[in-house]
Amino acid sequence: MNSQEEVNDFVKNGHQQYLPHLSIDPVIIGYHDQQLKVLLLKWIGLNGWGLPGGFIQRREPLSQAAHRILHERTGLEDLFLQQFHIFGDSPYRVQERSVNEFNETYGLAIDGNTWLFERTLSIGYFALVDYSKVSVRTDFFTVDYQWWDVSEIPPLLFDQNEVVEKALATLRLQIYHQPIGYNLLPEKFTLPEIHTLYETILGKKLDQRNFAKKLVGLGLIKKLDEQRAIGPHRSPYLYQFEKDAYENALKQGIVHTY
Amino acid sequence: MNSQEEVNDFVKNGHQQYLPHLSIDPVIIGYHDQQLKVLLLKWIGLNGWGLPGGFIQRREPLSQAAHRILHERTGLEDLFLQQFHIFGDSPYRVQERSVNEFNETYGLAIDGNTWLFERTLSIGYFALVDYSKVSVRTDFFTVDYQWWDVSEIPPLLFDQNEVVEKALATLRLQIYHQPIGYNLLPEKFTLPEIHTLYETILGKKLDQRNFAKKLVGLGLIKKLDEQRAIGPHRSPYLYQFEKDAYENALKQGIVHTY
Repeated sequence: MNSQEEVNDFVKNGHQQYLPHLSIDPVIIGYHDQQLKVLLLKWIGLNGWGLPGGFIQRREPLSQAAHRILHERTGLEDLFLQQFHIFGDSPYRVQERSVNEFNETYGLAIDGNTWLFERTLSIGYFALVDYSKVSVRTDFFTVDYQWWDVSEIPPLLFDQNEVVEKALATLRLQIYHQPIGYNLLPEKFTLPEIHTLYETILGKKLDQRNFAKKLVGLGLIKKLDEQRAIGPHRSPYLYQFEKDAYENALKQGIVHTY
Repeated sequence: MNSQEEVNDFVKNGHQQYLPHLSIDPVIIGYHDQQLKVLLLKWIGLNGWGLPGGFIQRREPLSQAAHRILHERTGLEDLFLQQFHIFGDSPYRVQERSVNEFNETYGLAIDGNTWLFERTLSIGYFALVDYSKVSVRTDFFTVDYQWWDVSEIPPLLFDQNEVVEKALATLRLQIYHQPIGYNLLPEKFTLPEIHTLYETILGKKLDQRNFAKKLVGLGLIKKLDEQRAIGPHRSPYLYQFEKDAYENALKQGIVHTY
C-alpha cells in the first residue's frame, strides 16, 4: 500500500477489509551483543514514535494476523510471537486530529469521518529477535525506524509506553516458563551465552553456577555430549533448549516448583 | 434488559451503544469446601452452555466493562479479576443461525442482519470467588445456570472450552505470582486452609511443610502473632497475604527466583 490511490481507499474503505476498533501492536524486542532494544517507527503527522502495528482482516485468524503484520514490517517469519495483553483502558485512544489536518499531512482527500479515527483497542504481542538480522520496512504512514535501548524509550503514541513496559515485564516473568531464547541463540549454545542473554533480559547479575543448575534442573535445557573449541585450552560443553518440555509444561499448566 | 421491546432494540441497534466484534467472557471460578467449579449459563436457542459474557460500551474503559459484566451476572464487586487472553483464531465464531430462527426462538421481529451475527473476538478474564456467596442472575437470553466441576465441563458454545482450559492453566501458572487466594480465604487463615486451597487449584498433593516454607520464603504470606483456638489442644498460628509484595513484584516484573 504505497500509492496515493491505495492509501485513499484504505482510509475511506479499510473497514470493509479489516475489523474496526482493533489493532495489533507488536513489541519487537531485539537482542544482539548484550543489548536489548525495541523497534519503533516514526509516524508521519502524528509527530512521534510508535509501535509497528496493523489491522486484522475480517476473516483472518488473530494469530495469523499477528504473524502477517510482523512479517510485513520486518521480513521475519516463524518467530516466537506471544500475545500478552489487550489494552483498552484509555477509552478513546483516537487520533486527535481533524480530517482536514489528516488530508493535509498525507495529501489525501477524505470527506467526513474515517474508521481510523474511531476508538481502537490494541492487542499486544511480543517477539524476540536478533536485531542484526531484521530489515525493517517503512510505508506510506511511517518515515523512519529505530532500535531504541529499553532504558531510553521516548514518549510514544497513545498508551504505547504502557504496552512496551508490560511486554518487558511479561518477558521477565516468563523467562523460566517459555523458551525465551529460542530465536536468539544458536541451536547449540554454551552456558556463558545463555547466561549473558538472561542477565541482559532481567537487567541483573545471576550467579553463573546456580543459573546453569536451575535451567538444567527445570529441564529447560540439556547438556549435549559435544564441545565447542574456542581456544587451545577452552572447549566448553554445548547445550540445547528442550522445546518439548516447555510446550508440554505450558499445555498442561504445570508449574515449575520453586 | 428484559422486556421484548428492550431486547428487540438491543439486537437491532446494540452496536450504537456497544463496540461490535468484541465480547468479554469471564471464566468465573468458584471455590468452596475443597471443590473448584466454573459458572456456566444455559443459553436459550443456542442449545448449550456458555460463559456469562457481555459487551463493551463504546466509551467504557475495558477493565471497567469487565467488572460491570461480572457484577451484572453475579452481584459481586471488588474482585480479583484478571484478563488473560484474547481469543480470535476461530475466524468466524458467529452464531450459525438465520435471522428467522433467531426471531422464532426469542419471539422477536428483526429484519435483515444483526451485529450479533458478526465475527466476535472474545476477551477472556478470570475471577476467583467463593461460590457459596454468589447469586447468579439470568436474563432474556439465558434460562438457567450451574456451577460445573472443572473436571466435568460440558461441550460449550463456540471455542469456549479452550477459553476455560486456558483460564485454569493461567491460574495454575500464576499461583505463586498473584494473590490467587485473596478472595477465597478469610483475611486471616491457617496454613492448612491455604494448603488445601492450593492443592485443589493445582489438582495435586503438596508437601505441607515445604509448601508453607516456600510461601513465607517468597514473601507472599506472613505469619501473624495471633492464633485461632479450634480445640482444647489445637490453636494454629494465623497468616495473612502480603498483597503489597505481590503488587510490587508484578509492577516491577520481578521474578521470584527458584
